[in-house]
Parts: sequence; C-alpha cells; structure tokens
Amino acid sequence: MNLDLHTHRILKQCDTLAGFSEEAGRLTRTFLSPPMRGVHACLSEWMAEAGLDVRIDAVGNLIGRKPGRRPNPKVFVTGSHVDTVPNAGKYDGILGVLLGLAALRELSDRTFAHAVDLIAFSEEEGIRFSTSYLSSRAVCGTFDFNWLERKDAAGIALAQALRDYGLDPAAIPAAAYPPGMVAGYLEIHIEQGPILESLGLPLGIVDAIIGQSRLAIQFTGQAGHAGTQPMELRRDALAAAAEFVVRVERTARETPGLRATVGSLIVEPGAVNVVPGKVRLTLDVRHAQDAIRHKTVADLVEVATVLGRDRQLGIDLSPSMDQAAVPSDPELTNRLANAVRAAGQAEKRMVSGAGHDAATMASICPMTMLFLRSPGGISHHPREAVLAEDVKVALDVMIRFLEAELDRER
Amino acid sequence: MNLDLHTHRILKQCDTLAGFSEEAGRLTRTFLSPPMRGVHACLSEWMAEAGLDVRIDAVGNLIGRKPGRRPNPKVFVTGSHVDTVPNAGKYDGILGVLLGLAALRELSDRTFAHAVDLIAFSEEEGIRFSTSYLSSRAVCGTFDFNWLERKDAAGIALAQALRDYGLDPAAIPAAAYPPGMVAGYLEIHIEQGPILESLGLPLGIVDAIIGQSRLAIQFTGQAGHAGTQPMELRRDALAAAAEFVVRVERTARETPGLRATVGSLIVEPGAVNVVPGKVRLTLDVRHAQDAIRHKTVADLVEVATVLGRDRQLGIDLSPSMDQAAVPSDPELTNRLANAVRAAGQAEKRMVSGAGHDAATMASICPMTMLFLRSPGGISHHPREAVLAEDVKVALDVMIRFLEAELDRER
Repeated sequence: MNLDLHTHRILKQCDTLAGFSEEAGRLTRTFLSPPMRGVHACLSEWMAEAGLDVRIDAVGNLIGRKPGRRPNPKVFVTGSHVDTVPNAGKYDGILGVLLGLAALRELSDRTFAHAVDLIAFSEEEGIRFSTSYLSSRAVCGTFDFNWLERKDAAGIALAQALRDYGLDPAAIPAAAYPPGMVAGYLEIHIEQGPILESLGLPLGIVDAIIGQSRLAIQFTGQAGHAGTQPMELRRDALAAAAEFVVRVERTARETPGLRATVGSLIVEPGAVNVVPGKVRLTLDVRHAQDAIRHKTVADLVEVATVLGRDRQLGIDLSPSMDQAAVPSDPELTNRLANAVRAAGQAEKRMVSGAGHDAATMASICPMTMLFLRSPGGISHHPREAVLAEDVKVALDVMIRFLEAELDRER
Repeated sequence: MNLDLHTHRILKQCDTLAGFSEEAGRLTRTFLSPPMRGVHACLSEWMAEAGLDVRIDAVGNLIGRKPGRRPNPKVFVTGSHVDTVPNAGKYDGILGVLLGLAALRELSDRTFAHAVDLIAFSEEEGIRFSTSYLSSRAVCGTFDFNWLERKDAAGIALAQALRDYGLDPAAIPAAAYPPGMVAGYLEIHIEQGPILESLGLPLGIVDAIIGQSRLAIQFTGQAGHAGTQPMELRRDALAAAAEFVVRVERTARETPGLRATVGSLIVEPGAVNVVPGKVRLTLDVRHAQDAIRHKTVADLVEVATVLGRDRQLGIDLSPSMDQAAVPSDPELTNRLANAVRAAGQAEKRMVSGAGHDAATMASICPMTMLFLRSPGGISHHPREAVLAEDVKVALDVMIRFLEAELDRER
C-alpha cells in the first residue's frame, strides 16, 4: 500500500474535476449542469479501473459497486456529493468521493463478505432547484415528487432537467435501496470550520449533525429626526436590536456547544440623521441536542419580547426552520474511532455544524462521518484547501475502517 | 387685534401654499422649482396687502420691507424658508413666513424707528443642489460661488436655474446686507421634535442650535459559516457593532442634552447562515456645547477602537461632519422671553436639534428663535401638524416682541 501515491492521485483528481465548471475562471457546478457530464465521465472511468461496477441512477447519482462475497450481501455505502456552490472550492464533497475511490482501489484485489457502494451524489448544495438533499432523498426513498415541477433560474423544470441529462424521472422509485439492505454509511468531508485547525488535529469524528432553528425578528419603533428627538423620547428599533445581538452572543458563549448567529440585520430608513424606525434581523441557532436548541430559542424569543416591550416597540417573530439534530450511530462511530486510533491519530469527537447527505442517509442505516481539517476554516470559497498529510491519514483510516466493517458479522 | 382671525388666515394660507407642488398628491417644492412661482405670487400679493415693499433678490429670496421712521434705519429681519423636502408637511418653514406676514399686517398702521424685512428664503433644505443654506448665505454675504456650477438631478446648473427663474447670478453679491445693517433676526419654526408636546407647552425659546458631528465607522472581521464556526473562534463584525450601538445609546442617556444616533448599519454579507464579516455604520452626535460633543466623539471613538481590538477586528473611522453649535444671542433671546411671558406663556428654554437659516443669520447679527409644539413630534412628513391655539400664541408673542424691538434704542 502506497498511501503517498494515493494521496497524490486524489489531489490531482480534485484539480482535474475542478476544471469542469459552468463559469470560466471559477468553479460552479450545479446539479446536472453540462460540466457534471465531465465529472461523471472521469469518475466512471476511475471507478471501472478500481474494479467497480458502475451505474447511474434516475437522479444522476453515479454509483460504483464492489460486490460482496455472500449471496444477497448487505451493502455498505460511502460517498459524498459532486455538485458545488457558486465560486466554490475544490474539495467540498468531491474529496469524500475520491477518498472512497482510492480506498476501494487499494482494496480491489480483496473480497469481503459485504458489498460496498461508492456514491457520487449529484445534488447536495440545493443551488439549482432550491431542494434539500434531492439525491440522497432518492436513495433513501424519500424523494418528494412535487420537486419534479420545480423550475431552475432558466425556467427548466427538474423533470425536464433529468430527461435532458438522459435520465428517466419515472425510474426514481427504483433508485431507493430496499429497506434493511444498507449496512451503514460513512461520509468523509472537509470540516468547513476552524476547530480541527485550532487544535492542530488532522481528523475529527462526527458524533452528530447539528440541529438548526431559524427565525426572522422585526422590531418596529418610530423613525425620527436624530437632532430633534431627545434620547428619553425615542423608540429606536436599532437600539433594541443591538441589545438583542449582544444577548444572543452572550447566551451562545455561555452554553457549551451552542452556535447562535445574527447574520442579517436591516435598518430602516437607514439614514445617518434618522433614528431607526424598523429593524429586521435573522437568528440562526444550532446545537447537537434539540432540547438545548429549543430552550435557547425560547429564551431568546423571551429576551426579544422583553426588549421590545420595555422600549414600547412592536415585535414580530416568525420561525422559518426547525431542523432536528441527527446523531451519528454510536456503535458505527466507535468503530470509526477504532480505525482512527489504529492509524495513530487522536480521537477528537465533534459535531457537524453544516448539513450533509449523511443526515439523510441516517434515515435508512447507521451513519457516521469523518472530518478533515480545513486550513483557515475556509469553505465555499476558492481558497478552500486541504493538507496532503491529512488526506493521507484520512485514507489510512478509511481503509482500516472498511477492512473491518466489510467482514463484520451482521 | 383679532388673533383668531389672523390664525385662521395663516392656517388657510398654509393649505393654499401646500398646493404648489412638483408632485401630484404630495408636497415637494425644491429651490426655484416651477411651483415656487405660485408661492412667490401669493406671498407678493399678501405682502403688498400688508403694506410691505416687495422685492426678490438674486437667489430668489422674496423680501417684504416695512420701512423704518428714521433715516438710514437699522433693519430687523424675520422669516423662514419656503422650499420643502420631498413628501413634506405643510408647516416646516412656511409657517414662520406667514406668522411674520400676519404680525406685520397687524402692525401695518403703525410706524417704528427701525425697518423690518420679512424674508421668504428660497432654499434651506438642501435638496435640489445639495447645498447648505444657499439663500441665507447669500443674504449674509457668504454665498459660495463654486455652487453656481453644481448640477441638479436633471443636469441643470445652479447658475442656469437662477437665470431660468429670471434671476441674475451676477447680482448675488448685492443680495448681502451691508455690514452692521441688521439689528437682529427672529425665526419662528415648528419644533420638529416631541419635547414641547411631552411638556404640554405651546412654545419653546431656542438658546442654541445644536452642534453636530458625523462619523462613518467600519468593523472588519471574518465572514464564516454560522454552523461550522464555534463562538470562541469567530470574528463577528456585527457582534462588535451591536456592542457599540448599546454603548452609544448609554453614553447619550448619561450625558444631559446629548443626542447620539446610529442611524445606518449595513451588514455584509448579510445572510441568515453567515457570520457577519463586515459592518459599516454611521454615528451622529449632537450637543449645544461643542466641548461636550467633541469629548463624546473622542470617547466613542475610543470605545469602538477597544471593541475592535478586543475582537481582533479591523476598524476604520472617518469623520464626515464637525459643525459647531450656534448659540442664540442672550440679550435678544431674553427679550423674546419677555414677550413670551407677557403673552402669559411659560418660558421654556431649549436647543434646536436641527439646523435652520437662523444659524447662518447669526454670522451677521444677534439671532434668536421661537419653536412651536409639533404634534406627535412629526416633521418632514405629510402628517406634520400645528395646533391653531399654538399659532395664535406664537403670533401674540411675535407682535409683542416686534413692538418692543422695532422701537428699541440702538
């Protein structure tokens, strides 16, 4: 086994696939866009070279299978997505596919009890059709057929986009695994955050994909002249909103594992000499434990309500998201941790602050995830990066993990 | 003397003049716009009826003079402006002109030692040419001749706008009063704020026109994913800006007479799931005493600097205005207070939080101002209002004041 050679090839493949873009000079590759054909062509060839049986399902997931030794074996699934955000980096998603490819290439001359499917999910970022995990939902049998009528920015319906790519929307139900068939799912992904780098660690083991609440909050006071309105007679919407932002940050800092963000804040009328009459802001609250998240949201709603009342402001609160946390499977994750330790690495447990296909896959099988350090914590940006050394140890872990997992008694 | 009749006529005149607008259905009347001709026509007629000698100067100020008894008398000046902001109310500016007109009509059969000029200033709001007190600067001999080349939104230069109105830019120097000629200036204006209403008083005596500082402040942190960035590793520009806004308000509440406002605050990138990387905000600080204003600005700059440093943010501060306070003339203001008390009203001293032509006039003569209560504190809005009873007592005060002032030994 030459891990350095594999690592070199993986990074070169990332560069190659980053060339398939809808836009000159930067990487943008949405669901079933023309450049995805290039990615599928390369991956098909590389999967075949690794001895995998290659097929594409009805939503454009490219799947390479290494058959199992047993008759009617269970199938273990690994993979990630090959679509990108606009002006993306070269590693988000695709790196997990290429690590799986390298591991299966390394294991190509061996046979195991169970089969493995390596899936290159066609859609995860939700850019082209504003969907959520369209591709993994198809694999899990929870594809929403209303989505077929959704249109992209060019007015093309999802059903038409599938047909244009040579796919058959009527075959989507067949893309789903039969119940009980999938033995487990491992996704390797860049962290997209700064935690591993801050700890000097290459790898993190994901205990849970964080749950998420979003709210829109509006404070309505009274606009007024910044010169003629004395402080004590003002109903300043921004003064209330600012207190709220301070309280949001304080609450998050005082609650371990909580992430709370006011990302958007819009002031009206927004002139230098006018006391703000209205502020609309967004609140994003995330935690691995739904109970803590729900309590935090309730507490912050109370804070906003009291701030508004004390200042005689109108207040509107509209929840726009309440997405449950998805815990990783404890046993599968412990076995992943075994592989991490066997590769000589520290066992760092963490939560994923972003969503992944793994969250969907957890609906049909035990799920776990491995994170790679993101230099600078940067993602969704051309400066997104990985360290070659980290790719190497991730591959080492993956091979050890699959060797054990594929021969496990079930 | 029938004050009720005068008051009725003043309010009817306000309604009439509000009909001269550039826009259907709302009042917008900028400097030398076509509807200003209608205002000038009405005012000329009414001034003549009141026995005044009417002329228009080179910047379009309409001036009605009541001559004095003495040879080479000094001239006392009163007035206000007849231009408006877009979508204006009916009283800002024009009410001061019409109160002067009613007072001089009431006094028309008497003669005094000194002359009186009633000036309807053509420009105060700074809308059409983004100028500051263009008309009163001409009267004071401080008109900036570079302004003649300024263009309005339609590309018309100020010089051309004057000529189109039938005025001669070359005659602007002659619009200035000779040094020492003006005995004093009284401007009556709506408060445009909530103070008098909150005290249940019709009138306020202006001790000073507030000084004003404006700054633009930018905090630059690091945008990041709201899910993957733990709180302790964030450099959140909005969290710093929010603390700053809270401190601005607290400082203003703790400093008597201070008004400090963050009126504009713009968050980038401004998405629900992105930690804010940059915030640009404005700070407006006003106080009747320049020393207190300057110390406050210095303190708040220090606050912003420390907040930025503690959070490892970049900080940019750019002052954009430092306008000195303009005190009213103490003796003239005391004589105005005498008239207020003689009319049976409480002597409420206050500062003007907005700028007025009076601030310019103070450069050539003793200046004072009288404020009328603004119902709801509302101004620069169609709901701007005055109470008839307040107009009546203001007129009573003005007549008493002029009677004494115009026969004063100088």
